Amino acid sequence: MNEKIKSACAAVRPADKEIITKAKERQAQLAKPPGSLGLLEDISVRVAGMTGKIHNKADKCRIVVLCADNGVCDEGVSCTPQSVTLSQTINLTRGLTGASSLAKHFGDEVMVVDVGVMTDFNCPAVINRKIAYGTKNLYLEPAMTREQAEQAVCVGLEMAEKCAEDGVEAIGVGEMGIGNTTTSSAILSVFTGEPASVTAGKGGGLLENAYQHKLEVIDGAIAKHKPDPNDPIDVLAKVGGLDIAAMAGVFLGAAAHRIPVVIDGFISVVAALTAARLCPNVKDYLIASHASFEPGYQLAIKELGLEAPLLMKMRLGEGSGCPIMFRVMDAAYAIMNEMATFEEASINDSYLDEIRIGDNFTVKR
Amino acid sequence: MNEKIKSACAAVRPADKEIITKAKERQAQLAKPPGSLGLLEDISVRVAGMTGKIHNKADKCRIVVLCADNGVCDEGVSCTPQSVTLSQTINLTRGLTGASSLAKHFGDEVMVVDVGVMTDFNCPAVINRKIAYGTKNLYLEPAMTREQAEQAVCVGLEMAEKCAEDGVEAIGVGEMGIGNTTTSSAILSVFTGEPASVTAGKGGGLLENAYQHKLEVIDGAIAKHKPDPNDPIDVLAKVGGLDIAAMAGVFLGAAAHRIPVVIDGFISVVAALTAARLCPNVKDYLIASHASFEPGYQLAIKELGLEAPLLMKMRLGEGSGCPIMFRVMDAAYAIMNEMATFEEASINDSYLDEIRIGDNFTVKR
Repeated sequence: MNEKIKSACAAVRPADKEIITKAKERQAQLAKPPGSLGLLEDISVRVAGMTGKIHNKADKCRIVVLCADNGVCDEGVSCTPQSVTLSQTINLTRGLTGASSLAKHFGDEVMVVDVGVMTDFNCPAVINRKIAYGTKNLYLEPAMTREQAEQAVCVGLEMAEKCAEDGVEAIGVGEMGIGNTTTSSAILSVFTGEPASVTAGKGGGLLENAYQHKLEVIDGAIAKHKPDPNDPIDVLAKVGGLDIAAMAGVFLGAAAHRIPVVIDGFISVVAALTAARLCPNVKDYLIASHASFEPGYQLAIKELGLEAPLLMKMRLGEGSGCPIMFRVMDAAYAIMNEMATFEEASINDSYLDEIRIGDNFTVKR
Repeated sequence: MNEKIKSACAAVRPADKEIITKAKERQAQLAKPPGSLGLLEDISVRVAGMTGKIHNKADKCRIVVLCADNGVCDEGVSCTPQSVTLSQTINLTRGLTGASSLAKHFGDEVMVVDVGVMTDFNCPAVINRKIAYGTKNLYLEPAMTREQAEQAVCVGLEMAEKCAEDGVEAIGVGEMGIGNTTTSSAILSVFTGEPASVTAGKGGGLLENAYQHKLEVIDGAIAKHKPDPNDPIDVLAKVGGLDIAAMAGVFLGAAAHRIPVVIDGFISVVAALTAARLCPNVKDYLIASHASFEPGYQLAIKELGLEAPLLMKMRLGEGSGCPIMFRVMDAAYAIMNEMATFEEASINDSYLDEIRIGDNFTVKR
């Protein structure tokens, strides 16, 4: 395996258990029944374990959107025209798409990266790391070479490193790549051994005939190329996409830099799973956001041992669930940073004419 | 029934179907697969029907927290000392509690109202509308008189009216009243015909013996006082609380003023259900937030025909789920207000050397 990827994997440390213990102690001191803030407590504790700090912030959040075309579109697996990859790649930089209009509204940054859009275009706001003009049609041949898959992962690592340099406090991982529910389902099928009928849905709204062919494309490609489930790079190269490979790199790189990293929808969770197969410690840095309506999502998130707290019935991609999850993380940090402890919440007698004394709330007289 | 309550019920109009149709048309024009933003679309469309405007804002959000003591605490139904009602009522105004620290962090307002705290106290930031020094022990006698229940509902109406005057764009309804999971379960049992074993949980962490007594208190009080399920004021008076009655008034008043109103947890959803029993059109103005861990929550939210999108495992109350839901509403409005239509998302040829033309994304040449 590529040296950069190897050293990133080696750099990912498991969550810091000592800080997690301290963060839990702080939560226990806050003026509330134990555990009554549920996931807000869990998130603040988990992130403490990631960053090594009890008090965290979500003031500078960034969605990294990896964009690439997928040759498998030739099989008619998507009902959206392939040119949308290009137009939305550009629109992501203009705050006009679903994810980017949300990001703009909330003050989150968007980093748009071309790892394989099939067209040359002139938009300096898009970071150009084009590895190929789209992948090959994986139904006929491997989507890409092993070297290309590694290169794409390295682009993701580079973007995560840039986020770390820029002081980004939470990364969201999104994508734009028409056809990438097919590649995601194929990867998930390889990792789980489940057939396409379990891992694949109808994407943006496929008709039954096209859906049946999508299933055949996935099962057929796996049977033909025999990707090795124990070699994630082999899986990415044979039935993946440049977008997903680069996304896996962002997840891996974020973990290496101890930055919490938010999973968006189906493609994002498959990329996260791929990163976790490259390096199991990556799991400690993953934050689930919304449960995608794509059927494979639940299978993938369970493989990661996570649960999505937001049931938004969304299936747009791009990282569109991340801005909402950044706000939930912000809320979790606000509890940890700003809520009173039992001691601080005690009230003094200037408020009172008479008071009954409780167990935890005492009047200082 | 009290004239003020009657006229509030008469003032609640069903959602505006014409604006809903227009809002759906606008969503269909936005550059995304139809329905792919799920609940963000639904919320923006529903709120359009509430306010009569396609474009809404969530810049000025307010949590109204109704505070009162419950005489049923004498039965040992809560493991939290009753004095916490008072101390947290005061702390809510200081941004120190769970809900108020979140509100402060996100710039939401908190309106704290004493409708029945058992102690006199000196805290001008709390709005004093005290109706009684707590309710009676409902296991022994009706919690309050019919007049007191109506008075409490009217306090809620007054607070909603103040919100409308102040230009509040979304109201969250919270509470502080130790013992109010018992009163909420009792109300829910009356409205649904289900026994306490279905509607009541262990609150902040009751032991088994105390829980069994809580069930007996609820079932026993209903058997004894025979509240009329078709007369919500009778239900509130006999087995409810001043907090819940006032909360029901806020829900009713918000609907009368066409302001979207966010349900927090279990007590809040029971208050919303009570308001909907007073006036079924109230349902059109309700927004569910997080699914409380109290077992009765799901029963109540289903009765309202709603579903909670946030699975946060929270059970603190106070309105603590509202600040997160305000952000989700903000996101929904951002999509409606700021995302590009297919037409706006078309890209011009300054970006392009070459492009394949799709169905929806065309190049203007």
